[in-house]
Amino acid sequence: MIIIGEKLNGSIPSCAKAIAERDEAYIKDIAKRQADVGATYIDVCASVKDNEVEVLKWMIELVQEACDTPICVDSPDARACVEAMKYCKKPGVINSVSGEGDKMDVVFPVIADTKWEVVALLSDDNGIPATAARRLEVFHKIMEKAKEYNIAPNRIHIDPLVEMLCTSEDGIALVIEVISKIREEYPTIHITGAISNISFNLPARKILNQCFCCLAMNAGLDSGVLDPLDRGLMGMIYATEAMLGLDDFCMEYISAYRDDIFGTQKK
Amino acid sequence: MIIIGEKLNGSIPSCAKAIAERDEAYIKDIAKRQADVGATYIDVCASVKDNEVEVLKWMIELVQEACDTPICVDSPDARACVEAMKYCKKPGVINSVSGEGDKMDVVFPVIADTKWEVVALLSDDNGIPATAARRLEVFHKIMEKAKEYNIAPNRIHIDPLVEMLCTSEDGIALVIEVISKIREEYPTIHITGAISNISFNLPARKILNQCFCCLAMNAGLDSGVLDPLDRGLMGMIYATEAMLGLDDFCMEYISAYRDDIFGTQKK
Repeated sequence: MIIIGEKLNGSIPSCAKAIAERDEAYIKDIAKRQADVGATYIDVCASVKDNEVEVLKWMIELVQEACDTPICVDSPDARACVEAMKYCKKPGVINSVSGEGDKMDVVFPVIADTKWEVVALLSDDNGIPATAARRLEVFHKIMEKAKEYNIAPNRIHIDPLVEMLCTSEDGIALVIEVISKIREEYPTIHITGAISNISFNLPARKILNQCFCCLAMNAGLDSGVLDPLDRGLMGMIYATEAMLGLDDFCMEYISAYRDDIFGTQKK
Repeated sequence: MIIIGEKLNGSIPSCAKAIAERDEAYIKDIAKRQADVGATYIDVCASVKDNEVEVLKWMIELVQEACDTPICVDSPDARACVEAMKYCKKPGVINSVSGEGDKMDVVFPVIADTKWEVVALLSDDNGIPATAARRLEVFHKIMEKAKEYNIAPNRIHIDPLVEMLCTSEDGIALVIEVISKIREEYPTIHITGAISNISFNLPARKILNQCFCCLAMNAGLDSGVLDPLDRGLMGMIYATEAMLGLDDFCMEYISAYRDDIFGTQKK
């Protein structure tokens, strides 16, 4: 499972405060803690109105001082992503493009001949398609464009768009169908999502996040934008990998438990 | 989800002590607590060497004083089940028969013209079949015999036999295949299992039990022998039902949360 640590995001109040006060220690601490529990990438999202690239640069440099984990440069503005990625010492992930506007044309040529990966959301100028079939149409348009730029499927993290469960009449059927079909069609592609979106407006959110993550992994999700400091969720990820036969004799599960990544906290 | 509360079992040390000391308060308390959180059946298993039926009778009568929840009469000895069921005021579940010996011939004629249900394990005189195909052969033999006695599929809880994950090389693939095929073939049958068997010999067992329960429900399991006082597991069951589209707008999930069945304990 590819874990994109989501904790450095200006839409989180404590992080917004740290950004406003240029609190270097906060940024470095959150980066290091996510790296220590095995985040594959550290997501960096400024969520500021002004000087976004400057804030991203400040955050990226602090993260790189705190750990060696590659960075996931996160902005709804594709141009800001492309500017900010220059401050990364090693290839990471651009988060994100979609079928909307010229996002792909801004990002794809820049990453074409690099090792950078990219998150691609299955939305377009008409918003988020309401059916699985329409979301898969957007997916196919994205894959066509990626092919033009020679970006291999294994550098793409498709985000099928996780929507809140509480307003759904058929549970997670739609997103599971999208994940399953994409996984069937592209065995090497990455499929990601903002796991905690599922539980908006519901109580006991953590159990819903765990449940969704498990079922989405079962359908083919192999990447997630999530909180790696959520011990329950991390335990569920290791448990699911073991159940799905991706962890012989539960060696990874046992090792992560010993490393205090989940279970009753040891220290 | 049909919940067979597993806490009154003489193989659990505290329960064995209560049985040895004829501690009526213990039996009634555990029965009531399981009933209060929504157990569909209260499993009653003596696990004693001598006078099993007498102990079962004592337990059954106490459970019936404590709550109105029907009983799941549990013994490896089919004859003991058939004797003990006479003390139940209303139809419950016999736990269990299998393809082994004459168990089905002992139990099926007795429950044929009743509303009693039965758990049937997919093992036979050769033990637990090592492949899904062989387990399904045992299943088909059980269904043939049930048909002879006019026992409808919706009165049968098939237990595909949950084995520990730690010695498996392909995770839960075998049991998921068995569950899926049975569900496909018999839409109205119940599929059950001892959920916590999955986590034997592994650390942080609860997360593994939750993960397995979620994936097994996704494949078609709709009944489980489990601890309904395990708040995490109950939360996962309600969450999974909502994810699978069995709980419109999460009303059952929200209601169970308000009833303090899972989530941060309120009282």
